[in-house]
Amino acid sequence: MRASRFLFATLRETPNDAEVISHQLMLRAGMIRKLASGLYTWLPMGVRVLNKVEAIVREEMDRVGSLQVLMPVTQPASLWHESGRFVQYGPELLRFKDRHNNDFVLGPTHEEVITDIARNELKSYKQLPANFYQVQTKFRDEIRPRFGVMRSREFIMKDAYSFHVDQASLQETYDNMYAAYCKIFNRLGLNFRPVQADTGSIGGSGSHEFHVLASSGEDDIAFSTESDYAANVEMAEAVLVGERAAPTKALEIVDTPNQKTIADVSEFLKSDPAMSVKALLVQGVAKEGEDTPIVALFLRGDHELNEIKAEKHPLIATPLVFATEEQLVALDLTAGFCGPQGLVKKGMTVIVDRAASVLSDFVAGANEVDKHAVGVNWERDAQFTEVYDLRNVVEGDPSPDGQGTILIKRGIEVGHIFQLGQKYSEALGCKVLGEDGKPLVVTMGCYGIGVTRVVASAIEQNFDEKGIIWPSAIAPFEVAIVPMNAHKSPRTLEAAEALYAELTAAGYDVLLDDRNERPGVKFSDLELTGIPHRIVIGEKGLDAGTFEYKGRRDAESVNISKEELLTKIAK
Amino acid sequence: MRASRFLFATLRETPNDAEVISHQLMLRAGMIRKLASGLYTWLPMGVRVLNKVEAIVREEMDRVGSLQVLMPVTQPASLWHESGRFVQYGPELLRFKDRHNNDFVLGPTHEEVITDIARNELKSYKQLPANFYQVQTKFRDEIRPRFGVMRSREFIMKDAYSFHVDQASLQETYDNMYAAYCKIFNRLGLNFRPVQADTGSIGGSGSHEFHVLASSGEDDIAFSTESDYAANVEMAEAVLVGERAAPTKALEIVDTPNQKTIADVSEFLKSDPAMSVKALLVQGVAKEGEDTPIVALFLRGDHELNEIKAEKHPLIATPLVFATEEQLVALDLTAGFCGPQGLVKKGMTVIVDRAASVLSDFVAGANEVDKHAVGVNWERDAQFTEVYDLRNVVEGDPSPDGQGTILIKRGIEVGHIFQLGQKYSEALGCKVLGEDGKPLVVTMGCYGIGVTRVVASAIEQNFDEKGIIWPSAIAPFEVAIVPMNAHKSPRTLEAAEALYAELTAAGYDVLLDDRNERPGVKFSDLELTGIPHRIVIGEKGLDAGTFEYKGRRDAESVNISKEELLTKIAK
Repeated sequence: MRASRFLFATLRETPNDAEVISHQLMLRAGMIRKLASGLYTWLPMGVRVLNKVEAIVREEMDRVGSLQVLMPVTQPASLWHESGRFVQYGPELLRFKDRHNNDFVLGPTHEEVITDIARNELKSYKQLPANFYQVQTKFRDEIRPRFGVMRSREFIMKDAYSFHVDQASLQETYDNMYAAYCKIFNRLGLNFRPVQADTGSIGGSGSHEFHVLASSGEDDIAFSTESDYAANVEMAEAVLVGERAAPTKALEIVDTPNQKTIADVSEFLKSDPAMSVKALLVQGVAKEGEDTPIVALFLRGDHELNEIKAEKHPLIATPLVFATEEQLVALDLTAGFCGPQGLVKKGMTVIVDRAASVLSDFVAGANEVDKHAVGVNWERDAQFTEVYDLRNVVEGDPSPDGQGTILIKRGIEVGHIFQLGQKYSEALGCKVLGEDGKPLVVTMGCYGIGVTRVVASAIEQNFDEKGIIWPSAIAPFEVAIVPMNAHKSPRTLEAAEALYAELTAAGYDVLLDDRNERPGVKFSDLELTGIPHRIVIGEKGLDAGTFEYKGRRDAESVNISKEELLTKIAK
Repeated sequence: MRASRFLFATLRETPNDAEVISHQLMLRAGMIRKLASGLYTWLPMGVRVLNKVEAIVREEMDRVGSLQVLMPVTQPASLWHESGRFVQYGPELLRFKDRHNNDFVLGPTHEEVITDIARNELKSYKQLPANFYQVQTKFRDEIRPRFGVMRSREFIMKDAYSFHVDQASLQETYDNMYAAYCKIFNRLGLNFRPVQADTGSIGGSGSHEFHVLASSGEDDIAFSTESDYAANVEMAEAVLVGERAAPTKALEIVDTPNQKTIADVSEFLKSDPAMSVKALLVQGVAKEGEDTPIVALFLRGDHELNEIKAEKHPLIATPLVFATEEQLVALDLTAGFCGPQGLVKKGMTVIVDRAASVLSDFVAGANEVDKHAVGVNWERDAQFTEVYDLRNVVEGDPSPDGQGTILIKRGIEVGHIFQLGQKYSEALGCKVLGEDGKPLVVTMGCYGIGVTRVVASAIEQNFDEKGIIWPSAIAPFEVAIVPMNAHKSPRTLEAAEALYAELTAAGYDVLLDDRNERPGVKFSDLELTGIPHRIVIGEKGLDAGTFEYKGRRDAESVNISKEELLTKIAK
């Protein structure tokens, strides 16, 4: 491509409304432009990247045996009524009526449509496993679209769906898709981790998210320092460490006037927050005909409640709701000064986090205003109903797989694979004839990659103060050739043209910057747009038989021979 | 691809609701399935064809220097208000509100969006000409979607838009795009013709439609037998042929009781309809403060009025409206018996078609009930205001370019290129700084190809009673290999695998039909799905060192050597 015939829509200034670096750089590099809130046009510089991402995703889907289909963006609401999601999905599902007053939605996802296809086209167990994918535009009516294409309303997904006679077959395809996803993100040149994700009621290893690691990520990922264990912080198990020591102190009640928070109390008593417990009083599950009970949760003072874990406990209401002021008063409990002493005797359920359960001689509320208890010990001073994993892991915790300790980093979710089970096949009646001649409800998996989001996440991970630094595989151009004074010196332009022809013929994606601009402008544009290799052709170099080369991450350019140049840019 | 891992969703029966052959065969070949009225899912067999069409279109757009962009499917209504089309477009424009109650449309086309991009990104004449394309999903809320993907509501278009400083630059790009379109449709293997299309107020050679010739087409195309002249029948000029002979008969009034139509009168009088004229009385353009006048049009009895041509006459109202009963009565005219005699004297405008204008001694109405005039001659018996091209051309007419005569065939419009001029750039204020430093309104062109429609039109042109006959370039697979008794004979399967590996490595798109099905079922499927080359591998052939080959259009298979086989399938 000749730069003079391309659209360089680069901007010198950082646009005001772009918060994250990928959004800023995609605008500045002329990759995207905003059409309306959450709607972006991809300009030529952006489309080139998008096409390369899509091509890699499609190649690996084809390789793993997924068959490409294309389902409509617009979907009849009737299918969403069948699955129950027309009501459940909430206002992110854009609903509209056509000219005949029939209800439709703009598809945020295609489980209903593919299950409809499958129930019509798949008749026998002999046709399974089946695996279909598409690369299609999706729409989600975000209440507050932000971060450019990272959280836009219209976006492009690769979504795949698989169909199976049983869980074992699903697991096999799931494992293959897991491997294909790793291959895709490796080929894209991204530093990523597959992490165990919450599967709701399914449990087990039924869901993985693929996260690109970047400090701007919205999710916290817990990793092992030693193994490839990785999980969402919400999902990572906080394992029990150590045993409870025998009491060495007597229980004592001390005055702690107006000291309600753990930080205040620890400061006031000159004690370690890790040697105290804090109470969280939440709604339990009511028995028929009875009032909603209150469940008391105790965590170590320096730990945070993990609501998802708490909600999994059968005695705790889902979603998690804290006790009301009235409920506390009815139980004679004092907000800010609540300790575990005497609660079980009052008939309350007391659940203690694993880490809190091995404390001895600890600090707790005294169940009186402006008083705390010190030297508290479980069983001697306070009973509990059960020990349970209630908290978020923190850095330094042992990895749940027994290897190494936990590190926490931020990640951007770019892929998600999920064992759906029979949720949609049950709802839509997707059955095949089994080997025994009887109909069986198929088991499903689904597998998504946010194609447009991948582009943004690659930038979040690869940039510097000059602009984007593309991984070669998805760079809009792999190599840029800049002839110096091209408009005055036919010699540099001719040499540039010759090198351009040679590299293009060798399969490289090359930009010849023949624009009538100052070198400084060209260099800024090439750095901003993140082109991995830059070759400058000047009179001196031509005389010396060398090329001025600079890799996008290099601090300085070097003058090298043609042979060295070809080695530098070799893939 | 191994057939056992592919989705063969073929149907033996022709679906009831499919009217045209392409719709029937796309359903039967398992290429598409209906999701809702005018909405289709593309199954794997269909997507393979769609991808090949899209790849060819993209390659040629890249080659001609058009830059790929991607604009959202959903568009803010505000841009459509700016262009005026939010109101003008009618109910085919699907309008909806998002969760914040803002107005949006599903884009049936993207002139507004690209013009908005251009007015923001293009600042100087130095950036022009600019040419952008996308391949994107479009939505048109057809009142009666039909013919499968031929007239669906959701469809895929390649749409391109160009921007220029003047008409000369537009014409240059237009000519290049015209050539690229010819190349695309040639590469797709289609029998097509570029035809001059109606440009409304622009005129000249400012618009061409690209039609695939097929008897099921909705449009009539007029061709020259000798030159490459082609035009929509509505557009083709009917040239004046011959001169009017001198009168040889006297005017005579004859009784023609109840004979109102040309056919009836000609039969009754034993005269040639081509030797009569028929009257069409239409509304004229009213002068201020006056009643709407009636204009009398006269055509030869065997010719048809072309309303588009009539509407171009400055004295005739647009859209064309016929005179009412009251208007006829007021002028003392008799429906069915109206002749040109005396009309100009009554103050009426009389416009005579060119062919009718050279008649002499002809038959016409006598302006009395149940009477006609014979031996009528222009000027002697009847005056006229003007001679004008009012009729549709018919086969045998001379070609307007002076070479050969007209043939008429049916066509399916698959592409359209159009010189937009300044319609959108004026409305949206799309200006650049000109060479003289002053702002100038850019001149635009637009260029569309119906990607999904191309697939259907290729079938309309290439099928037989067994199914589809794909042009090689867009066949889902180019070659099918069928091992006989593969489940019993490892020898045929091994030979098939070897040939499959060899042809795949040579770059062919090969299907190995390893399904556990009878040969008859496989052959039917391969013929129905239109795969160009079929190779059967059996025990006898292996012994003899030959392959059983059948081209999709061949009546019989032949046993040939490997060398001959490779020649047969060579591209």
